[in-house]
Amino acid sequence: MELASRVVDRMYNNDPFSKWLGIERVEDGAGKSVLRMTIREEMLNGFDIAHGGITYALADSALAFASNGHGRMSVSVETSISHTESLKLGDVITATAEEMSISNKIAVYHITIRRQDEKVVALFKGTVYRTSKDWDV
Amino acid sequence: MELASRVVDRMYNNDPFSKWLGIERVEDGAGKSVLRMTIREEMLNGFDIAHGGITYALADSALAFASNGHGRMSVSVETSISHTESLKLGDVITATAEEMSISNKIAVYHITIRRQDEKVVALFKGTVYRTSKDWDV
Amino acid sequence: MELASRVVDRMYNNDPFSKWLGIERVEDGAGKSVLRMTIREEMLNGFDIAHGGITYALADSALAFASNGHGRMSVSVETSISHTESLKLGDVITATAEEMSISNKIAVYHITIRRQDEKVVALFKGTVYRTSKDWDV
Amino acid sequence: MELASRVVDRMYNNDPFSKWLGIERVEDGAGKSVLRMTIREEMLNGFDIAHGGITYALADSALAFASNGHGRMSVSVETSISHTESLKLGDVITATAEEMSISNKIAVYHITIRRQDEKVVALFKGTVYRTSKDWDV
Repeated sequence: MELASRVVDRMYNNDPFSKWLGIERVEDGAGKSVLRMTIREEMLNGFDIAHGGITYALADSALAFASNGHGRMSVSVETSISHTESLKLGDVITATAEEMSISNKIAVYHITIRRQDEKVVALFKGTVYRTSKDWDV
Repeated sequence: MELASRVVDRMYNNDPFSKWLGIERVEDGAGKSVLRMTIREEMLNGFDIAHGGITYALADSALAFASNGHGRMSVSVETSISHTESLKLGDVITATAEEMSISNKIAVYHITIRRQDEKVVALFKGTVYRTSKDWDV
Repeated sequence: MELASRVVDRMYNNDPFSKWLGIERVEDGAGKSVLRMTIREEMLNGFDIAHGGITYALADSALAFASNGHGRMSVSVETSISHTESLKLGDVITATAEEMSISNKIAVYHITIRRQDEKVVALFKGTVYRTSKDWDV
Repeated sequence: MELASRVVDRMYNNDPFSKWLGIERVEDGAGKSVLRMTIREEMLNGFDIAHGGITYALADSALAFASNGHGRMSVSVETSISHTESLKLGDVITATAEEMSISNKIAVYHITIRRQDEKVVALFKGTVYRTSKDWDV
């Protein structure tokens, strides 16, 4: 199995919140990640749409998986998200992480979340600090 | 009861995700909100610390409650968060929203999340669009 | 002449700071803008590289031109930038604005700045509020 | 002279763009900086108000001075700014940097820019990476 998949296995297999969210890994990779999940009843807010924390959490997981996929332990230092469409019960969303820039210590990712009809529902930008420790997997 | 509390009641009473998080309202207000919650097992990620989506969700709720507390329906347009300390099982966190700027259409909030030992664990900045619709409460 | 070019003409022709920067319009459009400039001596900071304010200013102009290019007066509400490479005297940089999302009141743009060797030097994200006033051009 | 002031001297004395802006140092410090400047004709945009790049540049300088003031070379990794009020010719603005969080590798600053009438005109948040190199001053 590829290094990226072994690292993400290690992260994902012990991640109770990703399990609660029902996150499905569509693609792993060095600097890449595609994740999918479905909006459930308990993820809604008072407007009957998905709470902003749900789409953020999906994007944040994609950031962690993509950046750690290089095999170096990496931690989020700053993230931002714009919620551009609201989500209803049963909507299926897919987060795609793209590595925009990488240096020895810092990497930047754009993560786009789309609904089943391909409409962009959230735009996320994340910056990570790349530690000097490698994953032992 | 104050307008802000009636609005937040309406939002909170029908918010399954805030309930799942166990969010407790410490203070409601026009442009203000203080919220508290405790980190549970199912909120942890693969590093045994709280998933970034948890602190984001708490801050995002504080943003919604503070901005709608003026009585005008307001929606998030851009948010950013820096996670500055990690959180363990059982940690109690408090989010305090402060209104930094408000105009007819746009308002900006700083939300600081602190742990039980007063250490800052996350810094959140949120911008909302203030619609022309009032809450009918 | 197209509406977008007439609007950007009006904005650009009376913009002393864009002139000082030496901004050249490569492409105008509704939701689009490509701008180019060259790093001069007086744009450097104490490390002999371009001051962060220079690349920000170029991206911010691209944001204004792209969003107003639809013919509706639009104002910036939140912007962020990551400086991923440093710039030296004589470097030529090109900012390309892409519209990621647009609704009646809010639009979001990604603006990528590249050096003459195509290397990405800055990643900018900008959110604008679209007023109800049209440009009279 | 204090370490922070020696570092900022070194940075500022060779900074042509800060000179062009007319930046005046009101206070130097480890994790602190207060800077002031006046809006001039050539800093205006097509709406006869200060270009967004001007207030960004002032805040970005405050970020550099405050973070490097600890004596460790520090570089910006992500910055965001909201422009909350417009500025006219002759307005005097003051940027105050506050250190919100600092660890071995990462520090976060809030920089507030106020006009002569104390009105907040811009809210800036900046994250820096702290290298392992010390300033030799």
